[in-house]
Amino acid sequence: MDLARSPLALPFPQMPPVSGVTLRVARAQYKDWDRADLTYAELAEGTVVAGVFTRSACPSSEVELGRKNVKLGRARALVVNAGNSNAFTGYRGRQAVEQIMDQVASGLGCAREQVFVSSTGVIGVPLPLDKARAGVAAVLDAVPATWEDAANTIATTDTFAKGAAASAMVDGQRVELCAIVKGSGMIAPDMATMLGYIFTDASITPEFLQQLLASANQQTFSCITVDSDTSTSDTVLAFATGMAGNTQLASFDDAGADAFAAALHDVCRQLAHLVVRDGEGASKFIEIRVSGADSDQSAHKIGLSIANSPLVKTAIAGQDANWGRVVMAVGKAGEPADRDRLSIGFGGIWAARNGQPLADYDEAPVAAHLEGTEITIEVDLNLGDGAATVWTCDLTHGYIDINADYRS
Amino acid sequence: MDLARSPLALPFPQMPPVSGVTLRVARAQYKDWDRADLTYAELAEGTVVAGVFTRSACPSSEVELGRKNVKLGRARALVVNAGNSNAFTGYRGRQAVEQIMDQVASGLGCAREQVFVSSTGVIGVPLPLDKARAGVAAVLDAVPATWEDAANTIATTDTFAKGAAASAMVDGQRVELCAIVKGSGMIAPDMATMLGYIFTDASITPEFLQQLLASANQQTFSCITVDSDTSTSDTVLAFATGMAGNTQLASFDDAGADAFAAALHDVCRQLAHLVVRDGEGASKFIEIRVSGADSDQSAHKIGLSIANSPLVKTAIAGQDANWGRVVMAVGKAGEPADRDRLSIGFGGIWAARNGQPLADYDEAPVAAHLEGTEITIEVDLNLGDGAATVWTCDLTHGYIDINADYRS
Repeated sequence: MDLARSPLALPFPQMPPVSGVTLRVARAQYKDWDRADLTYAELAEGTVVAGVFTRSACPSSEVELGRKNVKLGRARALVVNAGNSNAFTGYRGRQAVEQIMDQVASGLGCAREQVFVSSTGVIGVPLPLDKARAGVAAVLDAVPATWEDAANTIATTDTFAKGAAASAMVDGQRVELCAIVKGSGMIAPDMATMLGYIFTDASITPEFLQQLLASANQQTFSCITVDSDTSTSDTVLAFATGMAGNTQLASFDDAGADAFAAALHDVCRQLAHLVVRDGEGASKFIEIRVSGADSDQSAHKIGLSIANSPLVKTAIAGQDANWGRVVMAVGKAGEPADRDRLSIGFGGIWAARNGQPLADYDEAPVAAHLEGTEITIEVDLNLGDGAATVWTCDLTHGYIDINADYRS
Repeated sequence: MDLARSPLALPFPQMPPVSGVTLRVARAQYKDWDRADLTYAELAEGTVVAGVFTRSACPSSEVELGRKNVKLGRARALVVNAGNSNAFTGYRGRQAVEQIMDQVASGLGCAREQVFVSSTGVIGVPLPLDKARAGVAAVLDAVPATWEDAANTIATTDTFAKGAAASAMVDGQRVELCAIVKGSGMIAPDMATMLGYIFTDASITPEFLQQLLASANQQTFSCITVDSDTSTSDTVLAFATGMAGNTQLASFDDAGADAFAAALHDVCRQLAHLVVRDGEGASKFIEIRVSGADSDQSAHKIGLSIANSPLVKTAIAGQDANWGRVVMAVGKAGEPADRDRLSIGFGGIWAARNGQPLADYDEAPVAAHLEGTEITIEVDLNLGDGAATVWTCDLTHGYIDINADYRS
C-alpha cells in the first residue's frame, strides 16, 4: 500500500551535527523491501540518558528493558529496528533484544545496559535472530549517515521524514539539540508506535535530564492524539553526550538551565506536532485551547476528550463549526463543567458564550477559518484558572482507507 | 440527507397493549418536515416511574428536571419532542420544558412533577414555545397510536423503528413489558441521543423498579458504544401502571420478582442491541466477551476500551482478524493485564494464547466468521474471575459520510 505524502507535511529541517553522536544505517531486511531498516547511533563515553515510555499494560520487551536501564542513566548506543515491532512475542522477543544489546556492547566494550533498543512494525512475529545479528554487524561497519537518513530509516508507514533542531546558550556555551521521530500510521497488522530520539551535546546530570524530559513530555507528547489508541511500544529517549563543554547542569539553579529546558521543550513540541501532521488520513491540524477549568489537569482531560471525539473530528473534516459536538465532548470528560458558563469558539471567534449561542454570531469568518488547514478550537469553562492545550487532526475517509480497506 | 436502512436492522416486533398506557402522536412541526414529531404517553393514576440518565456534566433541562422528579416516583405522562434537543439553550430551554409540564398537568389534573419530557434533535435552539403549545394541545386530542407509531415518532436520524417486548409471570399474573428506543445517528448539528421508554402493567414500588432498572442498565445500555461519544440527553425511563393485578413487588423476596427482573433485563438488552444495530455506518454487530479479568468492573473497562478503539473497529470493518489491535486496546485500558497471559480469539477460535500467536492457528474459519455480520471477540486475561460483555459496531466510510460530508 503506497501512502500519499500528508498534505500537512513539513520539509525536513536543517540539522547540525551533535558532538559525540555518530549515526549509521543498514539493511537488516526485516521485511522484503528495498530500504535501510536498522538505525544505529553511537554515543560518546559519558553520555547520559533519560526516557519516557508508553503507559500500556502490555508493553514490548524493548520498552521493559529500556524502562529498567534508563534508570542507570548511561548510554553508549541506540539501535532501532523498523519493520517488526517484536511485540507480543514472549520470551523469544526478549531473547532478540538481549542478543542485540550483547552484540553492540561487545563491539563497543560497554555494559549491555548502556545499549538501548527499539522496534516498530508488525507484531506477533519474534524479531529474527539471524537478520538482527547480520544487520547489527553491517551497521557497526557502515559509513556515517545524516539526520534525514536516520529519520527515514526509523520510519515505517510515515509519509514524510520528521526532524527538529534547537540550540541554547548554557553557561556561555552553545549547545545543540537535534531530534528525530516516527509515528503516524498503523497499517494492519502493524501497531501505532511513536518513537522519538533527542540528541544533545550539553553536559547534564541524568536525573536533571529525566526531570526536564518528563516535564516537556507532559506538555507535548502527552498532549497529542490521532485516534485515542495507545501503542505498546511508544518511547522517547534523550541522550546528552556532554561534549559542548558547559559546566554540568544539575538543577534550575544552574546558569543556562532555563534556556536548555526551553530548547528541549521546543524540540519535543516540534516532534509532537510532526506526528499529528502525519496522522492517518489527516487533512487538518487542530489546536484545542482549554481555559477557565477547575485545574490544569482537568483542562488537559477536557482537551483530550474533545480531541478524541470522533464527532468533533469529523465535524472539522467537514468544515462544520459544530459547537454542539464540542459541548458534548466537554460534558463527557467527567470533569467539572457548568453548561450555563461554557463558551466555545473557532479561530478566535466565539460561537457560544455562557451556555447559549451568540445572538450576533457571524459564521462567515469561522467558515473561512475552517476551510484552512490550521484550525483552533477555544473552550472557556469559566470556572477557574486551569488551562491546557492539546493537538490532534481531523477524522476523514483517509483513516478508514488506511485502517479498514487494507487487508493484512 | 436520506439515510439508507441499516443492513443490521430487525423488523418491528409484535407488541401487545399494556393496561394503563395510551399512546398518541401529533405534528408540532419542530422542523419543516412531513411527519409526526411529538409523542405522548398517558399513564394510569398510580403509575410509578424509575429512570437512568446521561452522566454528561452538560445535560439538557429535560434531563435535569427528569432526574429530580423521578425521585418522587410517580408519573402520569411522557412527552417526547423530536427535531429539537433543546440542549445548550439556557433559561429559555428550561422555560419550554416547564411550559409543557404545566400544560399537560393542567389537562390531566396532576402535579407537574408527574409529567416527564424528553427532546432530541438540533441543539442550541430553544424549543419554540408556540409550536410546543400547539403540538401538546393537538396530541392531547389525538386518537390512540400504536407502538410502531410511537417508535417512529421519537426517532430522528434512526434508519428503522425500534421496539421490544417481554412478559413475565408474577404471582400467578402475567405482566407485559413493552418498550421503544431511539438512537443511532448524530447528524450535524444534531447530537447523539439515546432515549428509551419501558412500559409495564406490573405493580411494583418505585424504589424496587429503580433498583431493577439501574441494575439492568449497568449490563445493557452501559455496555454499548457506537463511537465513545456521550449525549447530553440520554434517558431511559420505566413506567409501571400496576394494572396487571399482581401483589405489589417490593423486593427480591416477593414471588415473581426474579421473573420480572429477568424480563426487564431482557427488554433493556434488546433495546440496547437495537441501538448498536442502527449505529452510524454500521455493517457489523460486534459482541466483545472479556473474561479472566481482575474484577467485573475491570473487565467492563477493558471491554469498552476495545469497543471504542477506532483501530479495532476499522479492522472488523475490513474483516481483518487483527488481534494485535485488540492487545493494544487491552493495554491502554489502564486495568491490570499481563501480556504473557493474554489470549485473544474471534468467533470462538483462539488466535493468540498466553501472549503468543498460536503455532497451529488456522485463519480460514476466523476469516469466514469475520465475513458475517454478527462478530464475537473473546479476550481472556487469565488473571482472575472478572467477566463482562459489551457490544458495538464497526467503523466504516458510512460513519464519515454521515458525520463529516454532511454540512449543516
